[in-house]
Amino acid sequence: MTGNSLFNHITLVLHQPRFAENIGASARAAWNMGLSHIIVVNPEDTDWERMTKLSTHMARGLLENMKTYTSLAEALAPFQYIVGTTARLGGQRKEIIGPSQAAHKIHSLDRQNRIAVLFGPENRGLSNEELRFCHCTVHIPTVSASSLNLAQAVLILCYEILMAHQEIPVNAEPVSPRLASSFELEGMYRHLSEVLQLMDFLDKQNPELWMMSLRRFFSRIGLQSNEVRMIRGVCRQLKWFITRYRPQPEPFRIPNDES
Amino acid sequence: MTGNSLFNHITLVLHQPRFAENIGASARAAWNMGLSHIIVVNPEDTDWERMTKLSTHMARGLLENMKTYTSLAEALAPFQYIVGTTARLGGQRKEIIGPSQAAHKIHSLDRQNRIAVLFGPENRGLSNEELRFCHCTVHIPTVSASSLNLAQAVLILCYEILMAHQEIPVNAEPVSPRLASSFELEGMYRHLSEVLQLMDFLDKQNPELWMMSLRRFFSRIGLQSNEVRMIRGVCRQLKWFITRYRPQPEPFRIPNDES
Repeated sequence: MTGNSLFNHITLVLHQPRFAENIGASARAAWNMGLSHIIVVNPEDTDWERMTKLSTHMARGLLENMKTYTSLAEALAPFQYIVGTTARLGGQRKEIIGPSQAAHKIHSLDRQNRIAVLFGPENRGLSNEELRFCHCTVHIPTVSASSLNLAQAVLILCYEILMAHQEIPVNAEPVSPRLASSFELEGMYRHLSEVLQLMDFLDKQNPELWMMSLRRFFSRIGLQSNEVRMIRGVCRQLKWFITRYRPQPEPFRIPNDES
Repeated sequence: MTGNSLFNHITLVLHQPRFAENIGASARAAWNMGLSHIIVVNPEDTDWERMTKLSTHMARGLLENMKTYTSLAEALAPFQYIVGTTARLGGQRKEIIGPSQAAHKIHSLDRQNRIAVLFGPENRGLSNEELRFCHCTVHIPTVSASSLNLAQAVLILCYEILMAHQEIPVNAEPVSPRLASSFELEGMYRHLSEVLQLMDFLDKQNPELWMMSLRRFFSRIGLQSNEVRMIRGVCRQLKWFITRYRPQPEPFRIPNDES
């Protein structure tokens, strides 16, 4: 598409960006560092004039080919590895790493893996709900009480991706196999959640609490497609078994003092 | 001044910035990474409204205390170590290093050394003439044919300064003494150039060629104040000696065929 497509397998994903200018400036930042694909999810404004105001002539190719989605899950479905970003350090349940560490992780994956670098809206960032799609969470260090804008955060992460790439010996062997896509993983998590609830293993009031631990565990491992199929095979078998043999819930009775 | 002054000894110097918005965005980037001083030299536009449009409330402290100079030499005079930036890689005579390497160099200097991080105008960058003030020249890697804007370049260099700082053990000893200031160095270079021309050592048509090598040499060493005084003492003695004993130039003669 452009002459700069150093990282054809990495896509910048902006979730609910509010300002068209920020999309343009982010595209320029990404393009400068060798990325050539951009996706926006539910953008508030994609006015072409405003979007291209802060992007260079060369970065327009990214914007012309930009894909727009209305669902984050759908946008992320084809990706095998998703890097989420957060400005907050407290209250997170996942391990948070630095930009350089994330960049090295990205380059440790085979280029046949499609990688998404995900940024949240300017005013609030990614919610914990949205961060659950991610295999790792990155925080860009700044001094206290400071605020990077969206394009600045995009620039630093993409800069570290280019830096880490330049450290890799040209003939280095691929170090990891193809991972399962987000689509495959999310299907597996739904399947697992359903089965674990049938087993009464998950608290029905708050099944997500335990599912979070499960997600952390699988994110760290980096599941492959065939492993996901294997796990879903077990889920199917369990579901069949449970629905066949599980005792029916007892009929509702009014409690009385005799019991 | 502000609560963010992690690097009180480092100053961002923008030489001939063209757009007030870029000054504001650069101030925001620098502030986010812990710098608290900014100098502009011959800015084209410092309109307060435009300047603060892209800077945050917190970064305004930098802009309120911003100093303006009309001479680059004068602006740089108090600094002991000057980091220059360039977007071009060809035709440079100095060694060019990366942002991380420059940041580590900065932190290897004692905090009593005042450090300037110098950026040229948006359209042309620093000329070779202007880069001669610098102890080292930094290039921010991008993919080919790309262009970072001023504030993006400022952000990346300041980000690397913060990153390198975070690697330093808290109780690390200062590793270098106080260096000579740019004011002291420029005086010494003028003195040296004058004496070397008097000695007919420098080509009078192009004395700068050899002076460049001399500057490279002294930049690499990192001269201290007392060493500068010593060198200038030698220069004074030489000048006295030469003007006393040097033979007068021969009177002009019309060449003829007999010679």
